[in-house]
Amino acid sequence: MKLVRFGEPGAEKPGLIDADGAIRDLSGVIADVAGEHLHPDALKALSQTDPKSLPLVAGNPRIGPCVAGVGKFICIGLNYADHAAESGMAVPPEPVIFMKATSAIVGPDDDVLIPRGSEKTDWEVELGVVIGKPAKYVSEAEAMDYVAGYCVAHDVSERAFQTERQGQWTKGKSCDTFGPIGPWLVTRDAVSDPQNLGMWLKVNGETMQDGSTKTMVYGVAHLVSYLSQFMSLLPGDIISTGTPPGVGMGMKPPRYLRDGDVVELGIEGLGTQTQTFRADA
Amino acid sequence: MKLVRFGEPGAEKPGLIDADGAIRDLSGVIADVAGEHLHPDALKALSQTDPKSLPLVAGNPRIGPCVAGVGKFICIGLNYADHAAESGMAVPPEPVIFMKATSAIVGPDDDVLIPRGSEKTDWEVELGVVIGKPAKYVSEAEAMDYVAGYCVAHDVSERAFQTERQGQWTKGKSCDTFGPIGPWLVTRDAVSDPQNLGMWLKVNGETMQDGSTKTMVYGVAHLVSYLSQFMSLLPGDIISTGTPPGVGMGMKPPRYLRDGDVVELGIEGLGTQTQTFRADA
Repeated sequence: MKLVRFGEPGAEKPGLIDADGAIRDLSGVIADVAGEHLHPDALKALSQTDPKSLPLVAGNPRIGPCVAGVGKFICIGLNYADHAAESGMAVPPEPVIFMKATSAIVGPDDDVLIPRGSEKTDWEVELGVVIGKPAKYVSEAEAMDYVAGYCVAHDVSERAFQTERQGQWTKGKSCDTFGPIGPWLVTRDAVSDPQNLGMWLKVNGETMQDGSTKTMVYGVAHLVSYLSQFMSLLPGDIISTGTPPGVGMGMKPPRYLRDGDVVELGIEGLGTQTQTFRADA
Repeated sequence: MKLVRFGEPGAEKPGLIDADGAIRDLSGVIADVAGEHLHPDALKALSQTDPKSLPLVAGNPRIGPCVAGVGKFICIGLNYADHAAESGMAVPPEPVIFMKATSAIVGPDDDVLIPRGSEKTDWEVELGVVIGKPAKYVSEAEAMDYVAGYCVAHDVSERAFQTERQGQWTKGKSCDTFGPIGPWLVTRDAVSDPQNLGMWLKVNGETMQDGSTKTMVYGVAHLVSYLSQFMSLLPGDIISTGTPPGVGMGMKPPRYLRDGDVVELGIEGLGTQTQTFRADA
């Protein structure tokens, strides 16, 4: 099942994608793609709904973030060996985690704002994992039971803010619009193997990242279990699982995003995003 | 004005503290101490309410976190010169920021859970700043206009998780119950000088921290302005502004919290907190 949120910012309605790729309005069935509606049992019940029984959404509405009420946006650093290498860093012996502010979340095709003073705004296509029910001290064997589904996540990063402005990466990861998620929340049952998904990113049509979740160092089950040892994961929390090689910072010379650049990215089965980058006035 | 939230976890009601120190029920006036109700104009209007016109709350209800709907819990590292020294680190040339998970927030007197596997759970009394209206790219001169008020914040920290488990401090700051806030949100008008407040913390009755916000390196106005250059600050966001000297990690030998330890802390004019630390079963 592919769930979606459509409509103007702050007024999105829940929907699902039918067999023809059209949006069906779910607002008569669930309040939002959020909270209790993300519980695996609730999603299973929802999957019994006949899409044809739901109103067809006309036109091409804006697509919003695929999940609402995100409490935590947890990112994993250096989780692809080749990306660690291009960043000049070693693969860590256990996952590196940092937070992206939830105020950075936007829809998959919304403009991304290059913050004032930014010279090093960079891209990172990532597999996003959406939590479906509270997870605390869960084992790796049971971890997947807590996953509602997956989405494309763009972990937009300002490298100078991240690494040249005093400790802790949060500063370069949390700028407004630096967290496009979606277009869809694809439920767990619809993804046969989250560790075997092609993923790619283009800047102005040129391929920059072309990888697979196959080369992720710490996989989804491990990450859910690992994080749950440190804090409760709650419904709607997102784990962005790291990026494969090909970021701008790793190029020689480095290449960063400028006003007017268009970034397209996607993950096999999870849809695509397209953002125009704009200087924040 | 001192605002409070009282009642069982997840079912707190808003209240205010009257001239006798009793709680008056505000639930007939505002839905919660959250969101739009934190706007300085809304707080000014609320302050016209005669406390005697509000129902007196009987008994001694549990006090909850003083703000609801916190979107970001932003912490400032090494913001007191003496604390930086005891941590063996230099005062940073600009603020160090990191995030504490909002799922860590609890009431001021709730038990704090020592996470499984923790050997180095530590204390940090901090001045919390609560944002009242959206702030983006604001100057230091106008920054205080965006502040709703202040509270006591306990930035509980697990030092091994923070510094020995691979990069980024979030891991040692975000455990469940590691963010007691309150008892009160004291509105900005009721704090004559946020940079001149005594602050203290005791463990089992023994004074460990005894400082003042006077020795803060980067003050409140600077922090609000600074953070707003990197991300929008939104109503209900909390900035925990760093801790003065006296944390367990800085002692020779270091001293950490064990099951049954009682921590009391307070800030002049902002009230006190008392937590019993318990091993998480």
